[in-house]
Amino acid sequence: MAILLRGGTVVTHEMTYKADVLCEDGKITKIGEDLAVNESDVEIVDVSEKLIMPGGIDPHTHMQLPFMGTVAADDFASGTAAALAGGTTTIIDFVIPSPGQPLMEAYQQWRDWSEKSMSNYTFHVAITWWDDSVHKDMETLATEYGINSFKHFMAYKNAIMATDDILVSSFTRCMELGAIATVHAENGELVYHLQQQLMEKGITGPEAHPLSRPPMVEGEAAYRAISIAETLGAPLYLVHCSVEESVDAIRYAQQRGHHVYGEVLAGHLTVDDSVYQDVSWERAAAHVMSPPFRPKKHQDVLWKALQSGTLQTTATDHCAFCNEQKAMGKDNFTQIPNGTAGVEERLAVLWEKGVNGGKITPNEFVAVTSTNAAKIFNMYPAKGAVREGSDADIVIWDPKGSKVISAETHMSNIETNIFEGMEVTGVPVMTICNGNIAWQNGELLAKAGDGKYVMRPTYANFYQSLQKRKALAEPKAVDRTSA
Amino acid sequence: MAILLRGGTVVTHEMTYKADVLCEDGKITKIGEDLAVNESDVEIVDVSEKLIMPGGIDPHTHMQLPFMGTVAADDFASGTAAALAGGTTTIIDFVIPSPGQPLMEAYQQWRDWSEKSMSNYTFHVAITWWDDSVHKDMETLATEYGINSFKHFMAYKNAIMATDDILVSSFTRCMELGAIATVHAENGELVYHLQQQLMEKGITGPEAHPLSRPPMVEGEAAYRAISIAETLGAPLYLVHCSVEESVDAIRYAQQRGHHVYGEVLAGHLTVDDSVYQDVSWERAAAHVMSPPFRPKKHQDVLWKALQSGTLQTTATDHCAFCNEQKAMGKDNFTQIPNGTAGVEERLAVLWEKGVNGGKITPNEFVAVTSTNAAKIFNMYPAKGAVREGSDADIVIWDPKGSKVISAETHMSNIETNIFEGMEVTGVPVMTICNGNIAWQNGELLAKAGDGKYVMRPTYANFYQSLQKRKALAEPKAVDRTSA
Amino acid sequence: MAILLRGGTVVTHEMTYKADVLCEDGKITKIGEDLAVNESDVEIVDVSEKLIMPGGIDPHTHMQLPFMGTVAADDFASGTAAALAGGTTTIIDFVIPSPGQPLMEAYQQWRDWSEKSMSNYTFHVAITWWDDSVHKDMETLATEYGINSFKHFMAYKNAIMATDDILVSSFTRCMELGAIATVHAENGELVYHLQQQLMEKGITGPEAHPLSRPPMVEGEAAYRAISIAETLGAPLYLVHCSVEESVDAIRYAQQRGHHVYGEVLAGHLTVDDSVYQDVSWERAAAHVMSPPFRPKKHQDVLWKALQSGTLQTTATDHCAFCNEQKAMGKDNFTQIPNGTAGVEERLAVLWEKGVNGGKITPNEFVAVTSTNAAKIFNMYPAKGAVREGSDADIVIWDPKGSKVISAETHMSNIETNIFEGMEVTGVPVMTICNGNIAWQNGELLAKAGDGKYVMRPTYANFYQSLQKRKALAEPKAVDRTSA
Amino acid sequence: MAILLRGGTVVTHEMTYKADVLCEDGKITKIGEDLAVNESDVEIVDVSEKLIMPGGIDPHTHMQLPFMGTVAADDFASGTAAALAGGTTTIIDFVIPSPGQPLMEAYQQWRDWSEKSMSNYTFHVAITWWDDSVHKDMETLATEYGINSFKHFMAYKNAIMATDDILVSSFTRCMELGAIATVHAENGELVYHLQQQLMEKGITGPEAHPLSRPPMVEGEAAYRAISIAETLGAPLYLVHCSVEESVDAIRYAQQRGHHVYGEVLAGHLTVDDSVYQDVSWERAAAHVMSPPFRPKKHQDVLWKALQSGTLQTTATDHCAFCNEQKAMGKDNFTQIPNGTAGVEERLAVLWEKGVNGGKITPNEFVAVTSTNAAKIFNMYPAKGAVREGSDADIVIWDPKGSKVISAETHMSNIETNIFEGMEVTGVPVMTICNGNIAWQNGELLAKAGDGKYVMRPTYANFYQSLQKRKALAEPKAVDRTSA
Repeated sequence: MAILLRGGTVVTHEMTYKADVLCEDGKITKIGEDLAVNESDVEIVDVSEKLIMPGGIDPHTHMQLPFMGTVAADDFASGTAAALAGGTTTIIDFVIPSPGQPLMEAYQQWRDWSEKSMSNYTFHVAITWWDDSVHKDMETLATEYGINSFKHFMAYKNAIMATDDILVSSFTRCMELGAIATVHAENGELVYHLQQQLMEKGITGPEAHPLSRPPMVEGEAAYRAISIAETLGAPLYLVHCSVEESVDAIRYAQQRGHHVYGEVLAGHLTVDDSVYQDVSWERAAAHVMSPPFRPKKHQDVLWKALQSGTLQTTATDHCAFCNEQKAMGKDNFTQIPNGTAGVEERLAVLWEKGVNGGKITPNEFVAVTSTNAAKIFNMYPAKGAVREGSDADIVIWDPKGSKVISAETHMSNIETNIFEGMEVTGVPVMTICNGNIAWQNGELLAKAGDGKYVMRPTYANFYQSLQKRKALAEPKAVDRTSA
Repeated sequence: MAILLRGGTVVTHEMTYKADVLCEDGKITKIGEDLAVNESDVEIVDVSEKLIMPGGIDPHTHMQLPFMGTVAADDFASGTAAALAGGTTTIIDFVIPSPGQPLMEAYQQWRDWSEKSMSNYTFHVAITWWDDSVHKDMETLATEYGINSFKHFMAYKNAIMATDDILVSSFTRCMELGAIATVHAENGELVYHLQQQLMEKGITGPEAHPLSRPPMVEGEAAYRAISIAETLGAPLYLVHCSVEESVDAIRYAQQRGHHVYGEVLAGHLTVDDSVYQDVSWERAAAHVMSPPFRPKKHQDVLWKALQSGTLQTTATDHCAFCNEQKAMGKDNFTQIPNGTAGVEERLAVLWEKGVNGGKITPNEFVAVTSTNAAKIFNMYPAKGAVREGSDADIVIWDPKGSKVISAETHMSNIETNIFEGMEVTGVPVMTICNGNIAWQNGELLAKAGDGKYVMRPTYANFYQSLQKRKALAEPKAVDRTSA
Repeated sequence: MAILLRGGTVVTHEMTYKADVLCEDGKITKIGEDLAVNESDVEIVDVSEKLIMPGGIDPHTHMQLPFMGTVAADDFASGTAAALAGGTTTIIDFVIPSPGQPLMEAYQQWRDWSEKSMSNYTFHVAITWWDDSVHKDMETLATEYGINSFKHFMAYKNAIMATDDILVSSFTRCMELGAIATVHAENGELVYHLQQQLMEKGITGPEAHPLSRPPMVEGEAAYRAISIAETLGAPLYLVHCSVEESVDAIRYAQQRGHHVYGEVLAGHLTVDDSVYQDVSWERAAAHVMSPPFRPKKHQDVLWKALQSGTLQTTATDHCAFCNEQKAMGKDNFTQIPNGTAGVEERLAVLWEKGVNGGKITPNEFVAVTSTNAAKIFNMYPAKGAVREGSDADIVIWDPKGSKVISAETHMSNIETNIFEGMEVTGVPVMTICNGNIAWQNGELLAKAGDGKYVMRPTYANFYQSLQKRKALAEPKAVDRTSA
Repeated sequence: MAILLRGGTVVTHEMTYKADVLCEDGKITKIGEDLAVNESDVEIVDVSEKLIMPGGIDPHTHMQLPFMGTVAADDFASGTAAALAGGTTTIIDFVIPSPGQPLMEAYQQWRDWSEKSMSNYTFHVAITWWDDSVHKDMETLATEYGINSFKHFMAYKNAIMATDDILVSSFTRCMELGAIATVHAENGELVYHLQQQLMEKGITGPEAHPLSRPPMVEGEAAYRAISIAETLGAPLYLVHCSVEESVDAIRYAQQRGHHVYGEVLAGHLTVDDSVYQDVSWERAAAHVMSPPFRPKKHQDVLWKALQSGTLQTTATDHCAFCNEQKAMGKDNFTQIPNGTAGVEERLAVLWEKGVNGGKITPNEFVAVTSTNAAKIFNMYPAKGAVREGSDADIVIWDPKGSKVISAETHMSNIETNIFEGMEVTGVPVMTICNGNIAWQNGELLAKAGDGKYVMRPTYANFYQSLQKRKALAEPKAVDRTSA
């Protein structure tokens, strides 16, 4: 049934204005003041005093990920339910083939797992190894399966780490296909070395986790990935930038005219590394994720980078592990499954700390929680927009509503919440996904399988200049025949 | 009569797509594929193979400016005719009161002069002196006359230079009014000193002009204006940034989260300082403008700053003087009227060097020639957009058409053209202003007076976070009563 | 009588080695292991386990300065006694003419006042106004009175503030004379504006002081002074850099090859702005100096700038006011005399926080407390060196000795100490000045008048390239006769 | 026999003064004005109008290096003869074990080869592979053989490239031993990829060489090496920095307080990449070295970095190949032996372009050609100083003498000279090595074997703070026993 959002204030990444919004057949079909509709065919929702914004896009989640000997506790059903409850209507999850595993096989596996999604979803596909089949499967995925982004882990030595030769091959391939490379930037060799060293010194608890991944471990990898991409003329997206050094590296590249994009997690913007000193092992371990939470001074830099456009997107890296799973690393911090939740809290946290904190405008909020991700990953304006013709993925926001975030009330399957106790003013009151009310005032209305897989075409806008540059820079031999 | 643009490709600052565009009563009323219209009421224009883009906005022109003892050779009729011929539908000119002259008087004078404009127009108002009446008139202009930007010249000592105390007072006032301060950033004291020194050394020709205004003269003033604005919490826009030092200063501020915007001229992007070495005094003098053209290395930095978003807008500082006027400084370069033309060439030059040169995408072209200026100066989406409900200010672009720029064919009243001889591929073929075809294939159809004055409301989007920040930063006294 | 320092470890700005040091007739005449001397003519001092270092040079003090309606509480006797007690053997104080006062008159006044100095001393001369007599007196001072540095206050509007035109004239003159300009970098207009604003808001206590001088107030002025100096090709020295923004501005200039030097105060390295929140008005007011103490994050930047060579010198800006004097601003923070002490504590504080803190090596300690100032102000190697032929200005340092700094035991005439309670390991045990033991283990042996005035020749080393550059950059007219 | 240099001007890294210098038994024994000597025992050399400077130290040469299937054409005799002819008295060459070859074996091999050296010499030892024996041999070399620096090639994949795991192990080991790691910073994977790509495109000539090693290939590796060193707390020295990106990376590290040093080659300061476009294959190939010569803009940055202290040393990477050897890569640029000469020309080139060009002072010239290398590699003040007690390694410099550099007159065994045709004013007229006149006015007086091996102790000055930092940063476990 059609839905008319009556009397609200539309907030997009660039404008704020009063209007009604009509959703029909999964699309936004009409936006205007005082829209006339046939009331029998249309469910009219009064959204006066509320904001109508594009549903959130979380470009970084890991639902039911098999990782470090266990499987993430939120599957594609519970995880996307949490997303909807937080105002997020699309997630970009990751297909992560084991080294040696055919990409298409891994892709099918993840597609199977994700059938039960309640929100919309799509995938980055990780390149964890290299041979001719990988080269070929990337093309298949890009041209037939709507995959326009490939992920590379520069950490996790002896597991899924992509060494420089793989980065070079894969970035080159991305460029050929009109796709974008993304990287988890941490120097895996340094992490490995520091982990061994800390264990040898008997520092085995969660407090060792940040010590094994100091800021330059991330800054180095960010700079390296950028350098390789820049040398090859390929675009790049850095996931979960958490330190000033990464921001500096990105800015340095942008200032040279290169297409580098950066993502920051809601957690890194608001939680600092004091959590690892918690005398409760459980609470400390609940915060073990990579990159780790950082000294406070980095938060200020990250917010400013987001506001100034050096970073473009916010995400969560939602990868939930419950206490029992975390306990696998009781005597060895390197065995604590890396991951925290957040897909439900991201928008509210961003609004509270960002908009209420004077760091970003409501329009910038929309940009960094939805529109920018849609553009970079070429889903705009189907996604990330409140616009006639766009998908009806909408969050209705009450800027005056408030709540206290807590594991007791969240939808994730785990017992902890990294934002525990944070009071937020500005909360979702309704989430519309594919034109249907998927969540409303605490009630989940979506069902497993309601979410749709999102095809993402290659050759996003930025390729228009990238290709021209490449052509203009084509090397030429010197003619020495007459010399 | 309504116009239907049939079969074109709409290019906005963020999207490119096939569509017809219907213009009625001065507005864009419908955008869609294969629009059905009543052919008798609508002029149908075939724009297949052509691009439909928002008309250019030149945020920096000086038509018929009284300056340095003469008056700029292009008046509001010839100047705006040139604008239309180049695809620009709106100019932002400047009201420049003489020191001591009431602002309202100067404003009325310029409004009178501009009645004959063929394109749309609006004004920045310069603050060249300070007293209570200025303080009051700024409010009148902001609240009643649609002025949301005030200009400050940091150069031109003993004339219109605004010293730091004026900057402090005026920026504070802008903040109170929801307006934005703009600055011409050059250290007037240094320029004055260097001018005297060069004249004393007998270096009196146009080659002395850039020597009297080296890069740090601009960089210093940029940094100073930014610092003052940042200290006061006020937004700032820097006109005609021409050197790496200015770009660095802007980036440094943005990286600290401050709202600083920067403009670059088509001339500074493409013309270098070798012009002042020309053995023809006339040709050298024709390039005398401030800031001067710069060593080539700055061009690369400016392009990259534009592409990365450190700079947001392009302009021309169109202020045309003919050879006879330039000759006033025959024996003393400080008497050469400062200014060059360009309002007609800007878009073609930006397309040729920017889009064809792989520096910017067509979408970025629209952003930097139109949309960004509309947003910063709060005219969006009436201006700067191809969008239902927007003003029908449109340029039809032929990306395959080409021409050679020359003073022989340009519309400006002067005998020289700083882009003389440049071959460009990508040219306007039709300009629609307020829903009427104003220029087409070399034929000017607009008449004097067709242009409309544009009211620009205060409190542009960026004020949403600025005001919150200011409130959160309110200073507090320490309570020492119990000590 | 000659003194032989037996068995110590010489620490210079570049080397550490075991040696005896012989001082005769005010000079160091011999350095070597196991020096043979005639024991009847020579006082032998056992300095085994101790370090022999060049006596400290404090390039920034204000003894008995008439300022803000009162006179600094430490005169040239008590102030230099404190210096000697802390291991400092030379101070560079300031001659500050009132606007309009002839420079030579002010200079003589200060020479008279300083006759009673116990340590060596010399003067920067401030340029607080400009006319031909100033231009001429600068030459007299430079060529006849050993003044090679001239100071400019960019703050203190309506008092001694030097506006840009004065800076341009004076820097140009410095360049002609082979002298170096120094600046107190704060934007006086902004300070004035913020002071008024805070008073209007009723924030009248010491907590308003830092609010009236936020970091960019300093950063702006630093950048401006540097830009002017760079444009003119003149060298520059920035006193009391206290914020990251100043460090960035200096580094930016150095990276462009310009000769810019920076000084940091022991106080800014170790005391933060929380002091202004003290519920005791007296304690808060005791810390009122300009620039104010800063948020902690700046300290880290300042230390690193010192270690990396972006900043070269440490000083104190010793300008002591007792509580009664501070109380002049009881109801108006702008009336609190600006100044704190520190000349006695500088070396010990630098050693404790710098050397013991792993921030600088002992050699770097010598460089930043003595040698670098001697080089920049062209007293090296007479001062700042332990070297045969150098003046016998030496501090004997016990790296294992410790003490707690306190106003109760310090030599200054005031009741407070900004380092109160700091425990330091590494203290002076003897100070030799002009070959005489001037202070030893808490006992002051020097008498008023023992200190000598230090002549400082112009054309320090860095002028060798500055002059060549200037010659190579000489502007040339274009020959257009044949055109 | 003793030598008295009479009437010269001593120029050190920090002072310039008139003095005589007496050399006895290989040492400088006396410096002073009008030294009295027994004329029968002492050879008196009139050096009035001449400068007496520390002999040059070239910290980067490869004499008779087996490389790319051939052996460098200058052996330790001809190479060091060239050094002496240019005023350089000490070279630091490289022991480069083949992967798998025991370090001690390689070291002995090089010691054997270097027996015939005419100038003094010492070695960096390269770490090209890793196992326990390498770990152990590093200690032996450091403690028994005077090796305090270990070199790492980040380029040359499939040959001597050190991957990140080796860098981590070796830097850690350097830190334990008080040695300093040095790196050749180029990303070997990228170079390899680009080489293949260029060959596939049929670009096989020398012009492909710079294309296979664009600036970011170097910048990336510089940043990576620095990040690894900084994470481990180890000092680092980057050889032959040739691009702005490397300078930026070094400055960024220094600004964070880290001990990173950088070297630049005389060639990179003065020769640009246009040489690879030469229509003569032979001339183009003669310039093939890694990193390659760069676009001109980098030269300006390098000079300024040298002047400001971001870079500290100059070298040559002297590794001479004659035309016949270069021809090995006639059809495949990747087979052209990498290397150029320069050990003879370095000082004259630096003086001409640096001192005469107003970029550096004579004192800075001494610092960057001699003293700084001596300090970093812990040979100071035996080397790099004109100081009583120092080794009598001296160059007598005629600042007015001039010559034209040419392969026709140089001492190297090859047919080309990268500085061919450069006219220099400022030339060596005599070189004293170990107290003997080794070269004078074009006549080589030294004999094979006259040079001495220089032992370099570990724990250079900068280790004083490095070790303290490491101790203060020691990680600690959280006590959770009571939780």
